[in-house]
Amino acid sequence: MARIVQKFGGTSVANIECIKNAALRVKAERDAGNEVVVVVSAMSGATNELIEYVNQIGGLCDAREYDVVVSSGEQSNAGLMALALQGLGIQARSWLGWQIAIQTDAVHGKARITGIDKNKLEKSLAEGEIPVVPGFQGLSPTNRVTTLGRGGSDLTAVALAGALKADRCDIYTDVDGIYTTDPRIVSKAKKLSKITYEEMLEMASLGSKVLQTRSVELAMNHNVRVQVRSSFKDTPGTIVVSEEEIVEQQVVSGISQSKDEAKITLLKIADQPGVAAAIFGPLADAAINVDMIVQNISEDGNTTDLTFTVGTVDLNKAVAVLEKNQAKIGIGEIVADSDVVKISVVGVGMRSHAGVAQKMFKTLADKGINIKVISTSEIKVSVLVAEEYGELAIRALHTAYGLDAD
Amino acid sequence: MARIVQKFGGTSVANIECIKNAALRVKAERDAGNEVVVVVSAMSGATNELIEYVNQIGGLCDAREYDVVVSSGEQSNAGLMALALQGLGIQARSWLGWQIAIQTDAVHGKARITGIDKNKLEKSLAEGEIPVVPGFQGLSPTNRVTTLGRGGSDLTAVALAGALKADRCDIYTDVDGIYTTDPRIVSKAKKLSKITYEEMLEMASLGSKVLQTRSVELAMNHNVRVQVRSSFKDTPGTIVVSEEEIVEQQVVSGISQSKDEAKITLLKIADQPGVAAAIFGPLADAAINVDMIVQNISEDGNTTDLTFTVGTVDLNKAVAVLEKNQAKIGIGEIVADSDVVKISVVGVGMRSHAGVAQKMFKTLADKGINIKVISTSEIKVSVLVAEEYGELAIRALHTAYGLDAD
Repeated sequence: MARIVQKFGGTSVANIECIKNAALRVKAERDAGNEVVVVVSAMSGATNELIEYVNQIGGLCDAREYDVVVSSGEQSNAGLMALALQGLGIQARSWLGWQIAIQTDAVHGKARITGIDKNKLEKSLAEGEIPVVPGFQGLSPTNRVTTLGRGGSDLTAVALAGALKADRCDIYTDVDGIYTTDPRIVSKAKKLSKITYEEMLEMASLGSKVLQTRSVELAMNHNVRVQVRSSFKDTPGTIVVSEEEIVEQQVVSGISQSKDEAKITLLKIADQPGVAAAIFGPLADAAINVDMIVQNISEDGNTTDLTFTVGTVDLNKAVAVLEKNQAKIGIGEIVADSDVVKISVVGVGMRSHAGVAQKMFKTLADKGINIKVISTSEIKVSVLVAEEYGELAIRALHTAYGLDAD
Repeated sequence: MARIVQKFGGTSVANIECIKNAALRVKAERDAGNEVVVVVSAMSGATNELIEYVNQIGGLCDAREYDVVVSSGEQSNAGLMALALQGLGIQARSWLGWQIAIQTDAVHGKARITGIDKNKLEKSLAEGEIPVVPGFQGLSPTNRVTTLGRGGSDLTAVALAGALKADRCDIYTDVDGIYTTDPRIVSKAKKLSKITYEEMLEMASLGSKVLQTRSVELAMNHNVRVQVRSSFKDTPGTIVVSEEEIVEQQVVSGISQSKDEAKITLLKIADQPGVAAAIFGPLADAAINVDMIVQNISEDGNTTDLTFTVGTVDLNKAVAVLEKNQAKIGIGEIVADSDVVKISVVGVGMRSHAGVAQKMFKTLADKGINIKVISTSEIKVSVLVAEEYGELAIRALHTAYGLDAD
């Protein structure tokens, strides 16, 4: 007998028919002799509708009341899922965040889980019941309803799996797993049967929307085996696990892209100490996140050129901040370019294999693709290229690293 | 300074614009120097949508989970109202049923309030805050969410007004008060400035949908002054109070009609002891509510005729039950008639004034309207007439009892 947390995302419980189908997946797990805890999101679209109401109300938004409003969608779905399970002859009951309780801090709107009292849920499981928990919601130290921020239902599921020492946390969603790259770009993309937490973290922060960074971090910290799988197919998904569990490690596990990046190049900057701080200080003050940074000596040898990336949404704001400080800092010219894409190869195997970056650079060079910026971490290499070359680059790299399906 | 509970029904908080308007009414009461507690319903239609979801799920409906689902609409509206009030510069916060707590029994779906812990709300008021309470919801002895049944938000408001010893409980709705009769039938119908609990009870049980019987009973038991008024007009509404508060009592306060009645006549019943029990027993077993009953000796003198009314929705079921027992009981013939309407004149003044019923019978006779069944209580006289004469009867009675507006 295994203990499994099954989490159903918004598209998996989007309407009554979906909820009934999800209930059948719970029943199948139960019929296989397993203990099951269910976590449900709100119906897809429901939370956005509630947020839109809050926006329409206007005024200074009190996040405590925001949480009272937006947590209601998960609550009703928890009741509906319990009813659907009962309809299949299964003993089930909803456990709201405050009933369990799922304790959080008081940072309403994006609270962190500080503790889960597992006693009631353990008792419920011991009685042969399936507890159904609304995701995304918790209880603050002053007994107010909190929510965990976007993707919060995944956090609930992973945290419950950790607290209850579950054997696995299954995240049911509208994709059937993690792929070596986006199958819409590379038809030969393969679904990974396993991926490490570290790789998943890089994929998440590089634009893969399947699991959010916080959930992966939490799973890693509590060593929760997370499976990403589809509500609409019966195939196994991708299991996110620690490195030790992966026997035959690929050097590169996947290739991701992010189009939400824009490049800013500052030409002919006075080459003097403190200039980098003078440039990035005002950007940080404006809450603009800077990602890749490279610095060159400029052609004349007396000044320096600096290139970095920001999120596309922040581009205009960043340029405005820089122009305001241009004279003071001594920047010759500001060149902005949003027609770029960041391509990353990710794999924990890089730690023990040399030549991964070199293969990337050579593959791109062979295709005549110019690399604008490079950045690396322990388990990934990212390059910035012109957007028009993005798909070509991904396909070439996918083949070069031996990721193509047979 | 007065203490006032303001309750906004579904049509008064049907969308964000309505919620903002309702918030302005709260502000006006506050600006007048009063302490205010707000109770909100779900957006009109929202609860029905949630109930429809529960119906679509099917299976045996666990009322505990039903309550988890259907209570969510009031929860989100409580948060939205608190935000709307904050937008007007007013300190406000939502207090959910379990946070207060509003204790109820465990009869999920139509729980009764067993107690309200007023301490947190008193503290909130003392701090100059406006508490916003979702109507309709409470907390069972085992810490489950309960709901109070249809019209439950009125119950919440009246119960809070009682517990907090409020000076008044204002029920904001889509009508501007209680009228002497339906203004769509009698253009000269007058809005009553005051009405007694007893009269309101009769009106409610006679089909007036403005306040439900349970809320009126609760108000009467706790001596809560309830005002029914419009969210969409600034005119004062109708205050429901105890008899002593009404100085100049009309003999008849109002005339109501109910079209949801059907008449069943049983002809030539064997006239023997126990026959009434034999007839009404099976109807009661089938959960069919019987209202007016009259019995006559039939033409031949050896048998009896019996006429009674049931709800229109129960008519076919009632006839089927009777036909099944027809031979055993000895019923000559069963005649059903749904083209009838019950007209009632209501007024506490009847207790001290003779001739009210007589005036009703004479007025109807003068118009050539045949009375099919009569029933009376201490403060009302009801007659059943053919539906086609209903409006004529109401207009004639409205004039006869001196209720027409000038």
